[in-house]
Amino acid sequence: MSLLDATLKSIQPQDRDWRERATSRLECLTMPHWSLGRLMDLAVDLAGMTRSMNPAVARRAIVTMAADHGVVAESVSKFPQEVTVQMVENFVRGRAGINALARTVGADVVVANLGVAGDLRSLTSSGKVFDKRIAPGTANMANGPAMSREQAVAAVEAGIEIAQSLGERIDLFGTGEMGIGNTTPSTAIAAVFTDLPVDILAGRGTGIDDEQLATKIRVIEQSLRVNEPDQTDGLDVLAKVGGFEIGGITGLILGAAAQHKPVIVDGFISTAGALVAQSLSPHSVDYMIAAHRSVEPGHEAMQSTLGKSPLLDLGLRLGEGTGAALAMNLAEAAVRILTEVTTFEEAQVSEAKF
Amino acid sequence: MSLLDATLKSIQPQDRDWRERATSRLECLTMPHWSLGRLMDLAVDLAGMTRSMNPAVARRAIVTMAADHGVVAESVSKFPQEVTVQMVENFVRGRAGINALARTVGADVVVANLGVAGDLRSLTSSGKVFDKRIAPGTANMANGPAMSREQAVAAVEAGIEIAQSLGERIDLFGTGEMGIGNTTPSTAIAAVFTDLPVDILAGRGTGIDDEQLATKIRVIEQSLRVNEPDQTDGLDVLAKVGGFEIGGITGLILGAAAQHKPVIVDGFISTAGALVAQSLSPHSVDYMIAAHRSVEPGHEAMQSTLGKSPLLDLGLRLGEGTGAALAMNLAEAAVRILTEVTTFEEAQVSEAKF
Repeated sequence: MSLLDATLKSIQPQDRDWRERATSRLECLTMPHWSLGRLMDLAVDLAGMTRSMNPAVARRAIVTMAADHGVVAESVSKFPQEVTVQMVENFVRGRAGINALARTVGADVVVANLGVAGDLRSLTSSGKVFDKRIAPGTANMANGPAMSREQAVAAVEAGIEIAQSLGERIDLFGTGEMGIGNTTPSTAIAAVFTDLPVDILAGRGTGIDDEQLATKIRVIEQSLRVNEPDQTDGLDVLAKVGGFEIGGITGLILGAAAQHKPVIVDGFISTAGALVAQSLSPHSVDYMIAAHRSVEPGHEAMQSTLGKSPLLDLGLRLGEGTGAALAMNLAEAAVRILTEVTTFEEAQVSEAKF
Repeated sequence: MSLLDATLKSIQPQDRDWRERATSRLECLTMPHWSLGRLMDLAVDLAGMTRSMNPAVARRAIVTMAADHGVVAESVSKFPQEVTVQMVENFVRGRAGINALARTVGADVVVANLGVAGDLRSLTSSGKVFDKRIAPGTANMANGPAMSREQAVAAVEAGIEIAQSLGERIDLFGTGEMGIGNTTPSTAIAAVFTDLPVDILAGRGTGIDDEQLATKIRVIEQSLRVNEPDQTDGLDVLAKVGGFEIGGITGLILGAAAQHKPVIVDGFISTAGALVAQSLSPHSVDYMIAAHRSVEPGHEAMQSTLGKSPLLDLGLRLGEGTGAALAMNLAEAAVRILTEVTTFEEAQVSEAKF
């Protein structure tokens, strides 16, 4: 059996008994009923994912996957493609946004090359960047499939392998990405799975103007028309209008879910990867935590398709895993509420009068 | 000059030059323009408050002020008054919600007795609780002023003194409170400063039912009618329909502002204290950070009166300082963005093409 098939087969839903045990304790804490709201919901989820009343979240990694996109030939981005490589170098130096935010929450930043067009050999040979390169960028999806079905499987399996190799030392995963142009395939994926028109979903990415936005919408519509991705087949969608790092994110989520570990899904691009994961394994959604609501207009519909409400809404639109890093602190808070707060009975605090 | 007058006189607005310096750097970071949204706005605020490009936020305290309320005689709360003392004991043992969340962000929990009805002598004499008791609970505001004007000044000055005494070892303050019944005076204060009717502002506090909510609304309306608080005089509002811990929060905010230090304002009750602070010193608002949006319906209008948008919206309604603690991590994130992320020029990353 392939790694992908074996992984999909091993993914189970959250455990109902552990959810109920956590709920029972949280209902008795010395505070008005459920008065820590979403944090308590999150604590129940974490107990259900990890099968534990003390869910492990201390050892954390943001996995930032980088790749390039042939569709940049259509002028869909404001930045040149060389920025993908330059930013990977910036991640390794520890000077990018994700590094600063990962340090805030004590998370490692693990960088992986899923298919960058430029040369990263010096970083991969020194072990600073996981070498999972499928190809030097996807093909231009406006003219045909972004990648072959075999490449799509390879990208997803690369993400699973990363989750597996980190499994011994990491409790809590966060997704991240870098890839100039990657809101374009992500919007195409969003259109496939939300059934909404492209012009409602598409946004300004790194900050394109009205004219470029019109171009981007036209290019995405053309890509969907040319490729006819099959909504019922996640690998087909990924191959035709996806990206290597998006496939890697899908794999990371599946790999975390197979290990009963929580995975915090970052922003717009990461959520496209999550939609592919949902398509391949509906139970994998049980291990996803939606970090934040992106500025990209399509993000809300995508999260709604996953059945997720984001924890944060801070006007972020950077990616890299930055929102996932911020949300890691909330996962820790949820666990501490479950494990460190006393119950009315333990503390001999008077309960409500009625 | 009184401590209150001297403090009010020393509060200056945020520094415009430091705001501009921070803005200039943030605009050049290796990321799409302002793509970390609210975190970047917060970084600018922190620079403007602290007059620094490396705003100090590492040494943190949540100051949780406790007091009782005579208005509980009107059956406005679901919990008996003895819970105020029991929860203070729980704070000192480190087993309440605020302790768990403060540990999540490395903040001290400083507990102060501003006027609890029960006996806290063992905790104050051992130094575990600041002894700032004004009286054993306020009078019932439904029948007359909750406190005298002198007591209102004393409560505010107690908060200023706490801010001053912590000033040498604390960079970042968070407000918190405990006081059975205290959403009732807070709603009265909200009604005075927002000019909105009580029935729009009032909520279920610890979880009262429809009948009790109707009682609570009637009691607040009666309190406002009986006392006629003067909207233009913060001390009059605090004295007539406030609480000792609310005055303490006002003082903590003023004391932080006078030291050019940020203060994270927690939820509904803390925001009532912030409205009194705004009334006494409009510039003090420049040092406030709104932590979160409470479930209490009046909170949005109160934050709007302060001109603040909250950072978090997690369905919290506990108080104690729990939302303020969570937001401390975002303040650290904002500072790290300002200080640890490289600019396009420093990193030799290509800028946008147009």
